[in-house]
Amino acid sequence: MSSITTSPFWSTGIEQLKAYVPGEQPQTDGWIKLNTNEMPYPPSLRALQAIRDGVNEKLRLYPDPSGTALRGAIANQYGLSPAQVFLGNGSDEVLGHAFLGLLKHDKPILYPDISYSFYPVWCGLYGIAYQQVPLNARFEVDVADYKVPNGGIIIPNPNAPTGIALSLAQLRELLEANRGSVVVIDEAYVDFGAESAVKLIPEFDNLLVVHTLSKSRALAGLRVGYAMGHPALIEGLNRVKDSFNSYPMDRLALAGAQAAIEDTAYFQQLTQSVIASRDWLTAELAKLGFETLPSSANFVFSHHPQFAASWLLEQLRARRILVRYFAKPRIDGHLRITVGTQAECEALVLALQQIVTVAGQKQEVSV
Amino acid sequence: MSSITTSPFWSTGIEQLKAYVPGEQPQTDGWIKLNTNEMPYPPSLRALQAIRDGVNEKLRLYPDPSGTALRGAIANQYGLSPAQVFLGNGSDEVLGHAFLGLLKHDKPILYPDISYSFYPVWCGLYGIAYQQVPLNARFEVDVADYKVPNGGIIIPNPNAPTGIALSLAQLRELLEANRGSVVVIDEAYVDFGAESAVKLIPEFDNLLVVHTLSKSRALAGLRVGYAMGHPALIEGLNRVKDSFNSYPMDRLALAGAQAAIEDTAYFQQLTQSVIASRDWLTAELAKLGFETLPSSANFVFSHHPQFAASWLLEQLRARRILVRYFAKPRIDGHLRITVGTQAECEALVLALQQIVTVAGQKQEVSV
Repeated sequence: MSSITTSPFWSTGIEQLKAYVPGEQPQTDGWIKLNTNEMPYPPSLRALQAIRDGVNEKLRLYPDPSGTALRGAIANQYGLSPAQVFLGNGSDEVLGHAFLGLLKHDKPILYPDISYSFYPVWCGLYGIAYQQVPLNARFEVDVADYKVPNGGIIIPNPNAPTGIALSLAQLRELLEANRGSVVVIDEAYVDFGAESAVKLIPEFDNLLVVHTLSKSRALAGLRVGYAMGHPALIEGLNRVKDSFNSYPMDRLALAGAQAAIEDTAYFQQLTQSVIASRDWLTAELAKLGFETLPSSANFVFSHHPQFAASWLLEQLRARRILVRYFAKPRIDGHLRITVGTQAECEALVLALQQIVTVAGQKQEVSV
Repeated sequence: MSSITTSPFWSTGIEQLKAYVPGEQPQTDGWIKLNTNEMPYPPSLRALQAIRDGVNEKLRLYPDPSGTALRGAIANQYGLSPAQVFLGNGSDEVLGHAFLGLLKHDKPILYPDISYSFYPVWCGLYGIAYQQVPLNARFEVDVADYKVPNGGIIIPNPNAPTGIALSLAQLRELLEANRGSVVVIDEAYVDFGAESAVKLIPEFDNLLVVHTLSKSRALAGLRVGYAMGHPALIEGLNRVKDSFNSYPMDRLALAGAQAAIEDTAYFQQLTQSVIASRDWLTAELAKLGFETLPSSANFVFSHHPQFAASWLLEQLRARRILVRYFAKPRIDGHLRITVGTQAECEALVLALQQIVTVAGQKQEVSV
């Protein structure tokens, strides 16, 4: 991070921006990396081959600015038309454009107080008023809390970092109650066990569903995300995109993403593996005294009544295992742990056993 | 383009956005493509190999959000420090962030009336006041016209679509006269014969120089651009970037761009080839009666006193040769023609010979 905190050359407001801080990306090998919710398994071989096939002379040419082939593949996958699909350089770019293009109205937008921490950052960047809606005591989104006047709603489903999902019935209730507002459902983690709102798109012209290839498609390094919704919402996003960067998707990302989307069998194999390891991990954590929220994502959000989460994080880090911790009210007792390979989950459990046992013995000695 | 022109779900102002329209990217083969200023030669083999090496299991992981290795390579190339380098998903993203982060002040920004047509689009997107400064009668930027109060200045050097460059002495005069404003020099085409402002960076803390890998590095399909300037300007850009998209550069773009930047010998070979073909093309066009502005870019801006530019464009298109035409006052008599390979330039000249001769004969008949 730079030590420069001001400059007369900055536009008004830049000084006050509070940036999003992504999880650590260690540039050395040898870490068990359970801190940024990446897929622990490799990308689709078909995707890798499609990218390899694209490494040629044609890289001198601009890509298709509207990503026609990839939008077609996504539309086909979800039973939509290409006019219902928007592409971006990662779902963060898609979400950024949605904030600027669809969520800036007179009334404040609503999102959960415990949620993706990029939401207030986009509000800050674009001057969007917002109101954070507290999760209930069980860390759940309560749809009843979203039946107030608003300029739009954005909710991750499953929510992050809790992992808890809303049902399709709850999503329908949310959409019914907000026919006049855009409701963005951020489904970064939906493929690990939640119900997608995609099937509600024909019913609701106010629904935008956002997906990423960084999690369930194992392509965080390629930067591809997309949004699906009524063509009028997609056109709003296109207007922002075409006023910002005509060619956000490079040729290799377009080719790799298309092959990854089409490789349904591999996608299902990966997500099922993660789900199985998540269930195993949750049970093992319980044996060690951890309390884990019911996760429909590729991570668990866990709390140990006896040990500070920040201390556990440091203990794991000393064993070259990275997990994530948020120093925020209500959740600063929790760790967010990405579900790794089964071997990584086992290494984590072993490390936690050692940490908890040794600390337990120290406690007994000091009593 | 969508037929949807309004929606109650759009944020205020989206309806009024006037998007940038990029040149046509035909999705079929068999075109001589001289319309979007791409490099006619393939990318560096070292760049292609670096990309190929990156097509592996690690694509499941997020890239380095700050692109440390690539920034180091660029800094090394230009004798700067990495803190003086900012990366983006194409120079359009870099410029977009510069408009939002550095060019939004109370006073209007200045740029030439005939220039890159994306500038007013970013002003529209971010609500930035601007004043277009007319080129002089010879289609040149006159630095004297930029000695008025302003909120910032952006000038392409060489300018597009004219191809005419300012000298280093003129750039210094511009910067001296505007110590209180950010001056962005957009050097997309600088490597084809103009002097880079990069060497003025140590002298001027108000100077931002923007480059792209889409032209002289033959990597338009990879989407990489960068900015160089005082660390305080770079930090202003970082604040916008980190409030918009933490990981704008994918792993393959980072790897390929680094190798391309480091392959200096090939870069010089390519740019010299284009310069030689440009000079040949300019001379041949003159034989056909075309008047061509003195170009320091990889395109020429040409006018024929007897034939409408839009008609010439259609005639060339019928022969599967794409060039670019701008239906704007002062320049609607010109064609912007990308310098292709020597063979492509020869095909173009042959086609124009036929078009001009046949039309000339018709004219004689009708007299």
